[in-house]
Amino acid sequence: MRKQFYLSLALLLPVFIQASRAQNQDSLTIRKIYTEALTNPLAYKNLDYLCNKIGGRLCGSAKAGEAVQYVKKLFEGMKLDTVYLQPMMVKHWERGTVETAKLASTKKGSKNLHVCALGTSIGTGDAGIRAGVVEVHNFNDLKTIGRSGIEGRIVFFNRAADESHINTFEAYGKAVDQRSQGAMQAARYGALAVIIRSATTSHDNFPHTGVQHYADSVKAIPAMSVSTNDADLLSSWLKDDPSLKLSMKMNCRNLPDAPGWNVAGEIRGSEHPEEVIAFGGHIDAWDLGQGAHDDGAGLVQSIDILRIYKALGIRPKHTIRAVAFMDEEIAQEGAATYADIAKKKGEKHITAIEADRGGDSPWGFSVDASDQQLAKIKSWKPLFAPYNIWFFEKGGSGVDIRDLKSQGAPLIGLVTDPQRYFDFHHSANDSFDKINVRELELGAAAMAELVYLIDNYGL
Amino acid sequence: MRKQFYLSLALLLPVFIQASRAQNQDSLTIRKIYTEALTNPLAYKNLDYLCNKIGGRLCGSAKAGEAVQYVKKLFEGMKLDTVYLQPMMVKHWERGTVETAKLASTKKGSKNLHVCALGTSIGTGDAGIRAGVVEVHNFNDLKTIGRSGIEGRIVFFNRAADESHINTFEAYGKAVDQRSQGAMQAARYGALAVIIRSATTSHDNFPHTGVQHYADSVKAIPAMSVSTNDADLLSSWLKDDPSLKLSMKMNCRNLPDAPGWNVAGEIRGSEHPEEVIAFGGHIDAWDLGQGAHDDGAGLVQSIDILRIYKALGIRPKHTIRAVAFMDEEIAQEGAATYADIAKKKGEKHITAIEADRGGDSPWGFSVDASDQQLAKIKSWKPLFAPYNIWFFEKGGSGVDIRDLKSQGAPLIGLVTDPQRYFDFHHSANDSFDKINVRELELGAAAMAELVYLIDNYGL
Repeated sequence: MRKQFYLSLALLLPVFIQASRAQNQDSLTIRKIYTEALTNPLAYKNLDYLCNKIGGRLCGSAKAGEAVQYVKKLFEGMKLDTVYLQPMMVKHWERGTVETAKLASTKKGSKNLHVCALGTSIGTGDAGIRAGVVEVHNFNDLKTIGRSGIEGRIVFFNRAADESHINTFEAYGKAVDQRSQGAMQAARYGALAVIIRSATTSHDNFPHTGVQHYADSVKAIPAMSVSTNDADLLSSWLKDDPSLKLSMKMNCRNLPDAPGWNVAGEIRGSEHPEEVIAFGGHIDAWDLGQGAHDDGAGLVQSIDILRIYKALGIRPKHTIRAVAFMDEEIAQEGAATYADIAKKKGEKHITAIEADRGGDSPWGFSVDASDQQLAKIKSWKPLFAPYNIWFFEKGGSGVDIRDLKSQGAPLIGLVTDPQRYFDFHHSANDSFDKINVRELELGAAAMAELVYLIDNYGL
Repeated sequence: MRKQFYLSLALLLPVFIQASRAQNQDSLTIRKIYTEALTNPLAYKNLDYLCNKIGGRLCGSAKAGEAVQYVKKLFEGMKLDTVYLQPMMVKHWERGTVETAKLASTKKGSKNLHVCALGTSIGTGDAGIRAGVVEVHNFNDLKTIGRSGIEGRIVFFNRAADESHINTFEAYGKAVDQRSQGAMQAARYGALAVIIRSATTSHDNFPHTGVQHYADSVKAIPAMSVSTNDADLLSSWLKDDPSLKLSMKMNCRNLPDAPGWNVAGEIRGSEHPEEVIAFGGHIDAWDLGQGAHDDGAGLVQSIDILRIYKALGIRPKHTIRAVAFMDEEIAQEGAATYADIAKKKGEKHITAIEADRGGDSPWGFSVDASDQQLAKIKSWKPLFAPYNIWFFEKGGSGVDIRDLKSQGAPLIGLVTDPQRYFDFHHSANDSFDKINVRELELGAAAMAELVYLIDNYGL
C-alpha cells in the first residue's frame, strides 16, 4: 500500500510540476495585466474623451453617433483583427429646452423645483399644466384614492428608496416602478401628469431621469422627475396646504426612429476562432450628465481588455470581443440586434460579460450560469485574492447580454462597490470627475483576468 | 455505536437550540446596527461640523482645542457613563503665511510651483533661499553624488510612489522616507534645503504635507513638498537646464510646546466594567485641508459606536470606550499618554481598535493578535458577510493604539478601500465633500458589529 502510494506520487510528479508551472505562469501574466492597467491608464483617458468631448449620448442623438465613430476609431487604432458596426433603428426622444415645475401655495408661497423630463415622456404643450397635487407611495394608493381623487390632478409618487438596504441596487430596484410605470398607472385614473421622486438613496438637488413606459391602452400623460430634496419639500408643503397648485412645463418629444449602431472589436482566437468570449458596456448615456459611471466606465473597461491583451502580447485561444451596446437606456435594441446576429451566424458564446454598475472599486462577479460553472470560477479565487477581488456569487449579469442566455451562454456581470452609484445615476452628477482612475483601471484588469482564465481553462 | 451517537445528539440538542437562538438574536441586533447607521447618519453630520465649522486642526493649534471641546460636548450630549480629557504637552508648529517656490531657467523661463512646508520644518528666513537643484531618488544617490555635488544646493527628492501596487498604502510606505528623513539626510552633505515629491499615487497640483524629522547631529534645513505634477515639471526642466535656479521662501516655525488633550467617552460594562474595549481615531489633522478622511472619519465612526449602542439600548458587558487621540500627525503624544494612563491605572484592554485609513467603503479588519484570536474573528465571517465585510487578515493596526501591545491588548485596524485615500491625504483635497455618507456610516456599523461580537464572545 505504502509502496504503491509512493509509486503513484512519482508518476504524478511531472503533472504536479507542470500544473504548478502553469499556475506560476498564470500568476505572472495576471500580475502584468494589473500593472499594465494601473500604470498605463488608457481606459481613464478614453473615458475622459467620451465624457468631456462628447458627453451625454442618448440613442438616436447626434452625440450617440459621434460616440460610435469615436469607439470605432479607437478599435481601429488598436490593430485588432476585426472591427465592425451592427446597425439598427432606435427610438429617438428629445428632452427639448424647457422643463420646469413651480409650486404655488397661498400658505407657503411659491417655489421652483429641481425637475427633469423622464425619457419617452410627451411634453406638456406650450400652455403647460397647472393643477392640484395628490401624493401617493405605490400603485395601490391610486386604487384606494380612486378616480374621484385623482382625475384632473397631478399625481406625485413619493416612495423613497430605502436607505437601510446594504446594496443600493436593491433600494433602487424597489423604488423604480414609480418611474417606469407611474404615468401609465396614474393615467388610468384620469391624472393629468405625474411628478416622481428620483430613484436614489441620495439626498440632493439633482433630478434623476430614466426611461418610463406608456401603455397602448391608456392615454399618454407627461412624466417628470423631481430631486429627492424637492420631493421632501413638496410633501411637506402638501401637508400644510393640500390645495397648493403645481405648474409644470416640458417641451420634450418623441421623434421618428433613428439609426443606431453597436460597435464591436475583436482579436481572433488562435485555437477556437469560432468560439467567442464577449464583454461590453453600453455606449448610449442619458443626456443630463456625461455618462461617466453609466456606462462610459463599463465601455472603456471592456475596450481596455483588448488593449491590455495587445500591450502584453497575449494571444487568446478563443475569439475575444469587446462590444459597445447601443440603446441600453430606452429599449435595448442593441442587445436584441447583437443576439439576433449571433444567432443567425451560429456563433457560440462561451461566455458573455457585462460591466454596467459604475466605475467604482471592483468587488468581483455576479454569475448567471450553472453551479458547476460558478464552482469553476470560484476555484480561481486564489488568483484573484492578491487584487482584492472577492465577490463570486450567483446573480444577474446585465440587460445587454441577457438575450444570449437562450443561446446557452454563461452570463457574468462585473460587480463594483455600489454605495455611490445612485448618487450619479441618470443625473447631471454622472460626470467624469466622479471617476477614480485606479478604481476604474482595476475594474478593467479584473475583467481582463477573468477573460484570460476563461480563455485558458474554459467554464 | 449508532445508539450512543443518537444519545449524544439528544443531549446536545438544547445546546444547539440555545446556540442557534443566540446566533439568531445576534443577526437581528447586527442588522439593527447597520440600519441605525444608514438611516440616522449622525457620524456624517458630526464630520460635517468637524470639517466645515472647525477644519484643519493641527496639534497645538487653537483649532485642535476647539475640536477637543466639540468632541467633549458630543460625548456629554450622549448621556454616557464617563467623559474625560487626558491632558499632555504637544509640539506646536505653525505653517505661517508664506510658502512659495519659483523656478528660473535661462532656457525654459520661470514658473511658480505648487508647494507647501513639511511639518516641523524651519522657515527659510525673509531672504529665502535661491540655489541650483540636484535631483535624487533615494538616500544612496546622495552618497553617490557626494558633498561636492550637493553642498550649497537644494536637493530634490523625486522618487514616485509606485502606482503598480494594488494597495496604495504600500506605494506610500515605500516613498515616504523621502519626506520623513529627506532633510536630515541631505543636510549631511551640505544641502541648503530640500524639495520633496508629494507621497501620493495621484497626479495633480496638490502639495501633500506631513511630518519630517531633524536629527540632533545635523543642521536643520528647510523642507518643502511639491505636487506630483510640478515634481514632473521640475524634473523635466532640470533635464533641459541642469543649471536652473529654484527660489524658495517659507515662514513656518516651531513654537514652544503647547497643551493638548485626548478625549474619551465610555459606557461602563454591566458584567466586567474593569475590562475595556477601546476604539478611536485621531482628532488632530493637517492644516491644509479639513481632515475629513484623515482622520475625522475614523473619529466620528468611533464616536458613533457609542451612539448606536445608546440608540439601540444595547448594554455592553465590558466597558466600551471611544477615544479621540491627539497628535497622531507629529509625535503621537496622545497615544503615549493614553497608554501611560492605562498602565498606571492597571486597565485591562481586551481589545483596541483604530480607524485611520480613510472613510471610504469598509472592507474588514487588519488584526495584530494571536492566530487563535484571528481565528475567532474569522469564525464571525458569516455574520459580517451580509454587509460585504470580507477582509480579516493579520496586519498592523495603527500608531495610536500601538503602545497598548506591550500591555497585552489584541490590536485591530479598520481596513477601508484604499484606492482614493492618498489622493486626499495631508493635502487641501482632504475635505468633507470627498466623503460618501453611506460608506462612512457602513464603516461605523462594521466597527460597532465587531465591538458587539467581542463584547459578547471575547477574543
